[in-house]
Amino acid sequence: MTITQDSVAEPVPPYDAFARACPSRTTLEHVMGRWGGLTLSALHEGSFRFNELRRRVDGVSEKMLSQTLQALERDGLVHREAQPTNPPRVDYELTALGREVADRLLAVVHFVESRMDEVLTARARYDETRGTR
Amino acid sequence: MTITQDSVAEPVPPYDAFARACPSRTTLEHVMGRWGGLTLSALHEGSFRFNELRRRVDGVSEKMLSQTLQALERDGLVHREAQPTNPPRVDYELTALGREVADRLLAVVHFVESRMDEVLTARARYDETRGTR
Repeated sequence: MTITQDSVAEPVPPYDAFARACPSRTTLEHVMGRWGGLTLSALHEGSFRFNELRRRVDGVSEKMLSQTLQALERDGLVHREAQPTNPPRVDYELTALGREVADRLLAVVHFVESRMDEVLTARARYDETRGTR
Repeated sequence: MTITQDSVAEPVPPYDAFARACPSRTTLEHVMGRWGGLTLSALHEGSFRFNELRRRVDGVSEKMLSQTLQALERDGLVHREAQPTNPPRVDYELTALGREVADRLLAVVHFVESRMDEVLTARARYDETRGTR
């Protein structure tokens, strides 16, 4: 499934994640949630079968991965392809839109990974001074 | 408080968010969590007092905002400045590192906001075909 720009030819409402009722909030929760972020990051590497993905996203339960994939598929970010084989083979991959989201998400992930020494130094400093202020 | 590059002069371990025990996971959860993302995005606009921030991040409870700010402060992404006034005035702002994280986070938020029409079209399509496959 490819979602094209055609679907946004009508006037674009002003979506605002700061507004409690804006639907962009739920999509951002799917994208940036604990498992959503890692799942999109993994799928950025290519197509995965369910159990492959589960091994890549270390620590995720079968149930959580299933829910995560379903939410991302519903939002049009992940494509689920079931092969008519026996047993059925199901592959997951990013849609074009999902890839664009994952590109930006990976910029956050890689940046945070690259600066974890600073984060850990800050944490140690915070824990040392805590309770003294 | 400014955390400089000096603190990463020692060899940098290979942080990997895919690994269950990597500390980058918790920081990413603070940054990309439901309220962490919106809090960092709000602070990208400038310094806020607690109640101002609570109004800006529509829907957050006092307790959740307090926990979110504490986690972000501990990770060195948010600076908390208490003025010695009566009553005490407390301001929150991004650190230099927090600003760099927020820049990247906002790229995700703005991109998702800009493509919500496509997301909503995909959701409607998914809900229509669900149960028929």
